[in-house]
Amino acid sequence: MRMVDIIINKREGRELSDEEIRFFIKGYVDGNIPDYQASALAMAILFRGMNKREIATLTDAMEHSGDVIDLSAIIGKKVDKHSTGGVGDKTSLVLGPMVAACGAKVAKMSGRGLGHTGGTLDKLESIPGMNIQLSIEQFIDQVNDIGLAIAGQTKSLVPADKKLYALRDVTGTVESIPLIASSVMSKKLASGTDGILLDVTVGNGAFMKTIAQAEELAKTMVEIGRSLGRNTIAIISNMSEPLGYAVGNALEVKEAIASLKGNGPKDLMELCYGAGAIMLVQADIYKDEVTARKALEEVVRNGEAFEKFRLMIKAQGGDESYILHPEKFEVSKDIIEIRAERGGYIHNLDALAIGVDAMKLGAGRETLDDVIDMSAGILLNKKEGDKVQVGDLLATVYTNKTQDEYRDIVKHIQETFIIKDECPKVDDVILKVIR
Amino acid sequence: MRMVDIIINKREGRELSDEEIRFFIKGYVDGNIPDYQASALAMAILFRGMNKREIATLTDAMEHSGDVIDLSAIIGKKVDKHSTGGVGDKTSLVLGPMVAACGAKVAKMSGRGLGHTGGTLDKLESIPGMNIQLSIEQFIDQVNDIGLAIAGQTKSLVPADKKLYALRDVTGTVESIPLIASSVMSKKLASGTDGILLDVTVGNGAFMKTIAQAEELAKTMVEIGRSLGRNTIAIISNMSEPLGYAVGNALEVKEAIASLKGNGPKDLMELCYGAGAIMLVQADIYKDEVTARKALEEVVRNGEAFEKFRLMIKAQGGDESYILHPEKFEVSKDIIEIRAERGGYIHNLDALAIGVDAMKLGAGRETLDDVIDMSAGILLNKKEGDKVQVGDLLATVYTNKTQDEYRDIVKHIQETFIIKDECPKVDDVILKVIR
Repeated sequence: MRMVDIIINKREGRELSDEEIRFFIKGYVDGNIPDYQASALAMAILFRGMNKREIATLTDAMEHSGDVIDLSAIIGKKVDKHSTGGVGDKTSLVLGPMVAACGAKVAKMSGRGLGHTGGTLDKLESIPGMNIQLSIEQFIDQVNDIGLAIAGQTKSLVPADKKLYALRDVTGTVESIPLIASSVMSKKLASGTDGILLDVTVGNGAFMKTIAQAEELAKTMVEIGRSLGRNTIAIISNMSEPLGYAVGNALEVKEAIASLKGNGPKDLMELCYGAGAIMLVQADIYKDEVTARKALEEVVRNGEAFEKFRLMIKAQGGDESYILHPEKFEVSKDIIEIRAERGGYIHNLDALAIGVDAMKLGAGRETLDDVIDMSAGILLNKKEGDKVQVGDLLATVYTNKTQDEYRDIVKHIQETFIIKDECPKVDDVILKVIR
Repeated sequence: MRMVDIIINKREGRELSDEEIRFFIKGYVDGNIPDYQASALAMAILFRGMNKREIATLTDAMEHSGDVIDLSAIIGKKVDKHSTGGVGDKTSLVLGPMVAACGAKVAKMSGRGLGHTGGTLDKLESIPGMNIQLSIEQFIDQVNDIGLAIAGQTKSLVPADKKLYALRDVTGTVESIPLIASSVMSKKLASGTDGILLDVTVGNGAFMKTIAQAEELAKTMVEIGRSLGRNTIAIISNMSEPLGYAVGNALEVKEAIASLKGNGPKDLMELCYGAGAIMLVQADIYKDEVTARKALEEVVRNGEAFEKFRLMIKAQGGDESYILHPEKFEVSKDIIEIRAERGGYIHNLDALAIGVDAMKLGAGRETLDDVIDMSAGILLNKKEGDKVQVGDLLATVYTNKTQDEYRDIVKHIQETFIIKDECPKVDDVILKVIR
């Protein structure tokens, strides 16, 4: 078997056999197949697509390219949630504790942020002392003890995806549904959970720009999960504007804390209740989502969700005084207020623009080597559909950059607030559920 | 400018700017752009194509990626011919001397064979002593002295193409018209000739499988040549069956010698007369192709074309006694005759099959490191449209491989001769001329 023939087969629109797909993944991880052949194949897959069987085989080959975690030592059904990424997306920090407070076992492996999208691990690291590199034993013990752990993937998990994702990132081959689906699902499958809730974001702040694309990706991943024996459900959520009000690591943790105390933004809470209800049914804690949702609302109201978050931070070495007194989080040197220059309604609060601006302010990484400024970011004061008058506060910018560095960014954020006379139609946060 | 954005632009079907194309070629030759990004771009170009401006810029960038040869020291108009490759294609060995004998300056840079296609340089090296690595000074002096030189490209010529072609060969990105056209034309333009005659082969022994593809490639190359100020004409020639009767290096040189003495195969001679007449008009030797053709027929008849060939071989250090006495060429150890198992007419003498079989017998290279057996090959005794009776000689196989090695190859050649009762329609060798 020759890799060049596999590339040509896909280029010509032919199905790849299981043997060809496994030959590619094994050879690529072994180093026998060079990057330049892998990137050519990735581009051919991007143009030609893959059918269900090909995607399932690719996912399975990637899942088994390294260690596979055995979570059977955790008592009860394990559930995990994965988002395809967005701006201001602190869902895991709120949803995880809520679901765990209702009795499900939340064993979550998370990632870092890149470009305009943030990463849960980076956000957690804004809490001093927080350790996200748990051993498998620590991870299992913590989930058994308190029902919740959020950690980074071990290095030995899905090496094929690590290598292939890094290559796709620099070769223009990220935006392929078979490649995104197999990347996400191989990691979720290898991390050993029973139930998987996928949050497929859609809008200009997400990889999927249209609902049709998002639905195709969601269906593809649900099918892979099902065909490989896991309870998999996907929601399609709106990422045309940022989720919640905070964009930036410490800012988002503070918003997550407020949310767990019952003071969360409407869109974020709606997403957490909707997704959480599905996860509690997946975990066999409740029979139906209506009852599950009521339970979630109750653990927010009675403080049990917040308490679960505190326990997790403490278990992972984080300084819990920051959770109890969020005013302790370091605040950036400069704070700039952006105010409305006219009255009306806010339209199209572009999530991509806000995400990129937050990154440039220091809240994100342009390349994987960049160091994040935990205090930097943007706090939105108004969102799509809100009515404003001249002089109203629209957003607050937090940064440690110099004025010369942030002047244009602030100007750009100001321009991102489009204010018109008529009131826009604002979409729900959960647009669809794919079961 | 980032290479990943250039890849994404082309992937999305957008035109690349001149700056983007030059950034790519310069970066790739410098080593700043890695192979894995170049192969992803090549695949995106294969799917999305390029417009005339993009192809002209790509060609120009490649042409100027290394040295450009200045042939202005040669007195008179220089003409060169390039074939996109085929089986049994010894045209350059016959056409070059014929055209030179009529007074044109033939300054030809040739290549090596790979896969089922042979290369003019390999064929010439079957003549003991023959030197194809001429310095630019030697090359120019020889063309001034005798009107004819055939040499390999110097290493410093078009390094972008050398690097990119090697990459395309192993990444399934050879079959792209913009990439083939810019590869061919950058080399022809860098080698400094005034007139360019392109022989675009079509059929299963060629890269272009259909006349429509061949015509698109031919038109693309003619446009590039014109837009960059060279007199460029293309013929589209039939490569569904091998050209002439001989396939294999020494066998083809012997057929070329016979052709120059007036005993050439009909299809080969037709191609040489047709192409040669165009080249003589390009070189301003004759005003029209009818007169030019008569002159070509005359130099074959009166021995001047053969004499030109002898002079070139001698000038490049080759042992001319082999030209004067072709029976001196070493003959392979084993000679196997293939005979007709039924009577009728020969149909579809598959050029690709014959080319691959000749390569396996030792006449070609599977990879660039393989060593060629100069005496190996296949001498066809019958071709498409010929009438045969049971027991008639169809082909003669020359090889130094063992019986175990060649048994299946011989069997396959036998099977390649399809004999039917009805007489097939045989196409002309020159299918079209693109001016």
